[in-house]
Amino acid sequence: MVKITLPDNSVREYEAGVTGLEIAKSISPRLAKEVLSISVNDETWDLTRPINTDASIKLYKWEDDEGKHAFWHSSAHLMAEALEALYPGMKFGIGPSIENGFYYDVDPGEDIVLRDADMPRIEAKMKELARQKNAYVRTEVSKADALKYFTDKDDEYKLELINELEDGTITFYKQGAFTDLCRGPHLPSTEVVKAIKVLSIAGAYWRGDETRKQLTRVYAITFPKQKMLDEYMVRLEEAQKRDHRKIGKELELFAFSQRVGQGLPLWLPKGAKLRERLENFLKKVQLQYGYQQVITPHIGNKELYVTSGHYAKYGKDSFQPITTPTEGEEFLLKPMNCPHHCEIYKVKPVSYKDLPIRMAEFGTVYRYEQSGELHGLTRVRGFTQDDAHIFCAPDQLKEEFKKVIDIILYIFKALDFKDFITQVSLRDQEDRSKYIGSDENWEKAESAIVEACQERGMETIVEYGEAAFYGPKLDFMVRDAIGRKWQLGTIQVDYNLPERFELEYMGGDGVKHRPVMIHRAPFGSMERFVAVLIEHTAGKFPLWLTPEQVVVLPISEKYNDYAKKVSNVLNNSDIRSVLDDRNEKIGRKIRDNELKRIPFLLIVGEKEAETNTVSVRKQGDGDKGTMTIEEFSEFINKEVEEQLSAIEA
Amino acid sequence: MVKITLPDNSVREYEAGVTGLEIAKSISPRLAKEVLSISVNDETWDLTRPINTDASIKLYKWEDDEGKHAFWHSSAHLMAEALEALYPGMKFGIGPSIENGFYYDVDPGEDIVLRDADMPRIEAKMKELARQKNAYVRTEVSKADALKYFTDKDDEYKLELINELEDGTITFYKQGAFTDLCRGPHLPSTEVVKAIKVLSIAGAYWRGDETRKQLTRVYAITFPKQKMLDEYMVRLEEAQKRDHRKIGKELELFAFSQRVGQGLPLWLPKGAKLRERLENFLKKVQLQYGYQQVITPHIGNKELYVTSGHYAKYGKDSFQPITTPTEGEEFLLKPMNCPHHCEIYKVKPVSYKDLPIRMAEFGTVYRYEQSGELHGLTRVRGFTQDDAHIFCAPDQLKEEFKKVIDIILYIFKALDFKDFITQVSLRDQEDRSKYIGSDENWEKAESAIVEACQERGMETIVEYGEAAFYGPKLDFMVRDAIGRKWQLGTIQVDYNLPERFELEYMGGDGVKHRPVMIHRAPFGSMERFVAVLIEHTAGKFPLWLTPEQVVVLPISEKYNDYAKKVSNVLNNSDIRSVLDDRNEKIGRKIRDNELKRIPFLLIVGEKEAETNTVSVRKQGDGDKGTMTIEEFSEFINKEVEEQLSAIEA
Repeated sequence: MVKITLPDNSVREYEAGVTGLEIAKSISPRLAKEVLSISVNDETWDLTRPINTDASIKLYKWEDDEGKHAFWHSSAHLMAEALEALYPGMKFGIGPSIENGFYYDVDPGEDIVLRDADMPRIEAKMKELARQKNAYVRTEVSKADALKYFTDKDDEYKLELINELEDGTITFYKQGAFTDLCRGPHLPSTEVVKAIKVLSIAGAYWRGDETRKQLTRVYAITFPKQKMLDEYMVRLEEAQKRDHRKIGKELELFAFSQRVGQGLPLWLPKGAKLRERLENFLKKVQLQYGYQQVITPHIGNKELYVTSGHYAKYGKDSFQPITTPTEGEEFLLKPMNCPHHCEIYKVKPVSYKDLPIRMAEFGTVYRYEQSGELHGLTRVRGFTQDDAHIFCAPDQLKEEFKKVIDIILYIFKALDFKDFITQVSLRDQEDRSKYIGSDENWEKAESAIVEACQERGMETIVEYGEAAFYGPKLDFMVRDAIGRKWQLGTIQVDYNLPERFELEYMGGDGVKHRPVMIHRAPFGSMERFVAVLIEHTAGKFPLWLTPEQVVVLPISEKYNDYAKKVSNVLNNSDIRSVLDDRNEKIGRKIRDNELKRIPFLLIVGEKEAETNTVSVRKQGDGDKGTMTIEEFSEFINKEVEEQLSAIEA
Repeated sequence: MVKITLPDNSVREYEAGVTGLEIAKSISPRLAKEVLSISVNDETWDLTRPINTDASIKLYKWEDDEGKHAFWHSSAHLMAEALEALYPGMKFGIGPSIENGFYYDVDPGEDIVLRDADMPRIEAKMKELARQKNAYVRTEVSKADALKYFTDKDDEYKLELINELEDGTITFYKQGAFTDLCRGPHLPSTEVVKAIKVLSIAGAYWRGDETRKQLTRVYAITFPKQKMLDEYMVRLEEAQKRDHRKIGKELELFAFSQRVGQGLPLWLPKGAKLRERLENFLKKVQLQYGYQQVITPHIGNKELYVTSGHYAKYGKDSFQPITTPTEGEEFLLKPMNCPHHCEIYKVKPVSYKDLPIRMAEFGTVYRYEQSGELHGLTRVRGFTQDDAHIFCAPDQLKEEFKKVIDIILYIFKALDFKDFITQVSLRDQEDRSKYIGSDENWEKAESAIVEACQERGMETIVEYGEAAFYGPKLDFMVRDAIGRKWQLGTIQVDYNLPERFELEYMGGDGVKHRPVMIHRAPFGSMERFVAVLIEHTAGKFPLWLTPEQVVVLPISEKYNDYAKKVSNVLNNSDIRSVLDDRNEKIGRKIRDNELKRIPFLLIVGEKEAETNTVSVRKQGDGDKGTMTIEEFSEFINKEVEEQLSAIEA
């Protein structure tokens, strides 16, 4: 018999050789239908693999990442089986599960090119094979046998992978007619794969190395139910409509230029205005919370990053040092603002009465990313953090933490992110050797965070062992309007930099002490936040924030002067208004400006010009009738005020 | 006889061999007393050198840079004579005139160290020698003789210089007992050097090369009248009091850190606030003039600067390229914003109806400067330009130029720079081959500038041959409160970048045209402008601009709460107020805050707390009596409004 400990710490006894599926069945038939993989002593296994020793287990379902991973990874094998059936002789690279679905990199040979038009065929074949309910069978093989199998298949990709493995660690998985080199785990059988969609076909270098052969990458996704696939496809379409790269282009918010460099955004006038409004909004909040803005350069002497430890840790993988034509100095593009802020802290002696010092900067930092990793504004090589560093005494931590939480919650409310998750990352309980700073300070900091979250009534997930080596942290993940999770704000305690920079303050006791630092960025970065905001709002920014609130549309050129007057009057009353005096039909102008997501369209023609009025159309709310300019000003100001007072409430 | 053409084009005849001094005497005895050097066919000569051919001449007096140059350069020889007399065996490097006075780099030998205490002795010796009225005598010498003379004197510095010269071009100058290698020109004799001040002694590497020997640099200044020296010393003292490095430290505006890097300013909270207020002020003006703000990265692919031509021109002497750990890309810190703005111009097709496009950015650029050249905020390695580029059709140039002039004049008025000079730099009339762009466009641009200046009623100095190869320009030099000239705003026409970036717009004629660009920066850079503003105002910024308008000073800790209330009430009415609740005597607090140049000090004690009043002290204007908080708010708001309406008037 073996003792099986369940996640609730209850223990059950089973015959040795019991499988995860059998355990699930013994708990409930429903669970057995839903379970997808199992963790056995912290290792994820197939549900059909026999358990021969006492073990702690956890059963994974669709809701668990590990469950989805098994589902999609098994589906990748199913797709490979279909591809091999359709295109005999095809060679296979790797086929992992990803965030949404899976892919397989394949080499179809010289004569075959996979195209989008082939996707339905592949899909159909996969469905046919899935219906065969073939089991995924795991076998351990010797390296020699593994090499022989793929030598016979003439698959140089698998051979390369096997050659890098150690004998005794190699497993094959087989379902139906298809055998793959694989560590697993997999589903019991193809039976549960009910809904299948091949999504796209792209090129990808073998092992991501541009000097090697370009393979064909086939992306697909599968679900246990057709309804889930249907919903996913609707969400996908909605996400594509909201893609910030698409909307950013439509609204002329930002652009990229190959000549400036990939991953280096150019903020176009409207995007720069939006960003400035967001920055000013945050500056105002921060001023109320006693922050002081500073401005520091975008480079620093290499010595600065040697002191901070960033050079030792990231130097090799970052943008390389900038040398000088004479004098032999070396500078680095700054990857973080904190070292500069530490140097500002040191400009003059600090007393305990000066603490906390809250130093804020919209600081643009540069970090090298592989070009393949770049994505719109969410993954860039240069970005502006809404950064601040709070230098405080250890016993001020909790109070400061609460204030930072308040700022972040205020911002989320203002920008209509109602749904978010927070995660507290604490030390590994078992191994404290890898952390710097005294036990006492860690305990102070950890309980400060946990208590601050409690006192603010936030539900948090606590993860042990996820703290950085220099301090615990709190992360905010928001869920956007279509349910996607985005990592935004972070609050991070740091004992390390004050140590490395030898920061001090004179205590009330007349003795020098070391302050503790909090790093925090509610938006994360302006680039990432604007991307998320675009996708969350589909480009329809809140009226109080949007850089262009009103567009005035003259019906024909005859009314351009009146339209211009209207626009000027509004601008003089701080209502952000633009004019569309292009020589186009009014219908076209309305359509174009609706696409620009401008909240209010004011149409003016003969009647309006004569009566000093405007004909008001509101985005998504249709015709609001005719108003005098003053009435419209009041109307829009009232709406802005309502929004702002809802935020303050 | 030789024909001598004077600057007014009148021609006089003289015996061949006539000297400049003789010509001056023939014109007027007074001129002969004031003249210091002469230009003969565009070459500056000694007044005593015989003129043997027909020539155009110009006589230089103290008011002319060339006159001062001869005076100070001759004074440097006089100082060398004094030093040689005082310290026999001293060796001499170079001794040029500079903006204010002159220096000589000397090698006093192993055993002698020149110190500040030696300055009076040197001064006295110079005066004694000056009274001897020794003539400066020019002789042409062969290279062999020149080498022999300094070999005998054992002066390796002069020998090194002579070795680089060509035989037949070498001249010596001798006055009294001292002979120097020198191209001249010099004064007729030491007689006119009436007032002498040795200013300082410093170290300087031979030929500015840190790998070579460190010599001793002796700075001094001389004048033809004692009164002029006295006035200069007063101005110098005043300038030292106003030194922006000193005031910047006192007011905690900015700082430097060796670890961040020399020449890379850190803007402290108060400095950042001042800079932000200046930026917002300019942004507002620019918005009214139809500018659009953009934001671009601080680096660009090397390709961008190859395209712009900056790499070919400056690459070797700049911060060197940043390489990437993989993918082999090269980036440069941006030295200018224009290439980025050209790329933004290219984001979408431009029609003539879209022009002019006025693209503005507070863009931080990085340019390498030798560490010895760095100076406070006026000479740095990283600075933020208040940059904008106007892309327009050639026939829009004049109108745009006038608008830019208007912005600059408005800013000068707002910041109380009443006294300024403008210089128009046009093409060399004789050689047009070195300029890019068609004759027609150049003429258009040059007359646009000249007419724009005329229409704005500005007096301008026109300099032919001073235009950049890519277009004419207009420079603004302001004179500060103590009469020093500072180069600030520039407006520059550019035909080159639109060509290099192949910028186009679709004309009304349905044909593509090339736009012309205007580069302009009213402040020049935020760093330089803030430095000039500090020195101009001695740190007493205008009330409407200054980041801290009011400080509230409780008489003792008992009144801290009331003081805090006062400060909050003021801040809530947008009056920028801070609190000094340090536990210090009120006298000390008043002194400290006067040093911080805060315009209004509000003192509060028992009486004030009881009656809801404040006791008002104004910087430089003493006690203004007791007011209620509301009365004070009105009082200060009225003063700000008066300032602002004076600017608008």
